[in-house]
Amino acid sequence: MLDYAEPVTKLIDELQKMPGVGAKSAQRLAFHILRAEREETDRLIEAIQEVKDKIIFCSTCNNITDVDPCRYCTSPGRDRRAILIVEEPYNLVTIEKTREYRGLYHVLHGALSPIRGIGPDQLKIKNLFERLRVEEVEEIILATNPNTEGEATANYLTKLLKPLGMRITRIAMGVPVGSDLEYADEVTMHKALTNRIEL
Amino acid sequence: MLDYAEPVTKLIDELQKMPGVGAKSAQRLAFHILRAEREETDRLIEAIQEVKDKIIFCSTCNNITDVDPCRYCTSPGRDRRAILIVEEPYNLVTIEKTREYRGLYHVLHGALSPIRGIGPDQLKIKNLFERLRVEEVEEIILATNPNTEGEATANYLTKLLKPLGMRITRIAMGVPVGSDLEYADEVTMHKALTNRIEL
Repeated sequence: MLDYAEPVTKLIDELQKMPGVGAKSAQRLAFHILRAEREETDRLIEAIQEVKDKIIFCSTCNNITDVDPCRYCTSPGRDRRAILIVEEPYNLVTIEKTREYRGLYHVLHGALSPIRGIGPDQLKIKNLFERLRVEEVEEIILATNPNTEGEATANYLTKLLKPLGMRITRIAMGVPVGSDLEYADEVTMHKALTNRIEL
Repeated sequence: MLDYAEPVTKLIDELQKMPGVGAKSAQRLAFHILRAEREETDRLIEAIQEVKDKIIFCSTCNNITDVDPCRYCTSPGRDRRAILIVEEPYNLVTIEKTREYRGLYHVLHGALSPIRGIGPDQLKIKNLFERLRVEEVEEIILATNPNTEGEATANYLTKLLKPLGMRITRIAMGVPVGSDLEYADEVTMHKALTNRIEL
């Protein structure tokens, strides 16, 4: 009698397949579901089903959307001369929140990671080049994450894009605004120093 | 266009209602669900539904079960003279894993917490006393968590149970086996010293 009843074990197993959900948190989530009102779990199930039924990926920029092409790609208000490249759809939201960028997007759905077996073919790079063949793009902004994988991806794309002649830029890395130098790691501090700007 | 499409927002909202799931992890889970194969999300939905359909709480000990009373309560192999009290059904599994305890259980489904508005009425205390009226219990082992809320609950129960005349015990608190004294906090060290045992 060491284990839970089979339906509970099965639910814990399924929950554990999700990113960042380990054995302990899967257990905690399963017990929450167990104790929750039926209406609450029905709402969760409905939300999962609705997302699977209605949400698709834009065939142009790979962003999540309910229409294809997505609203960013078809908006007459966006500047079509720039494409900003992000790893994930939620990174796009982070950029939008600044209200600074009015160009187009391209979502890679990941970053290069030899350790996790993610090579260029696993990323949405092919349809980026298809876009560049038809669209008149003047600048590509690489906004992949400021970590090893994001940097590797940015470097890889730079090599491929450079010959096409457009401007390629990378978001600035440095000490975050509002932070304390005391807590900056050496790599960040190194970036902040080498990329210092003239005042 | 700052936000996600409505079904995505709805899913993030529902996921965030679960314990330990903040805004960022709800987003991460939602995007995992978005990208997952349909079969994977169907399995998750099925697991949630099965748990809601098949799993109930034992009317005697409040443990999760698929039969009522549960297998612990009806097992002829268990010593009916002892009841071990835990906060959550998963705490019971931790006890079972030691293979040391052969008595019965009682699950409170929580601990006293004035801050979170959890008083005695929110815990499964009433049916513990109903059990004690009919069953011949010689020892109650209080295995609530070794933290403020678990201690408060153990103290509260001790006061109620003491007049009934049976033996009341509390699991030992001290330095965990395999750890380093260097990392023991003062309260734990204090417990380890005051509750030291004769060799």
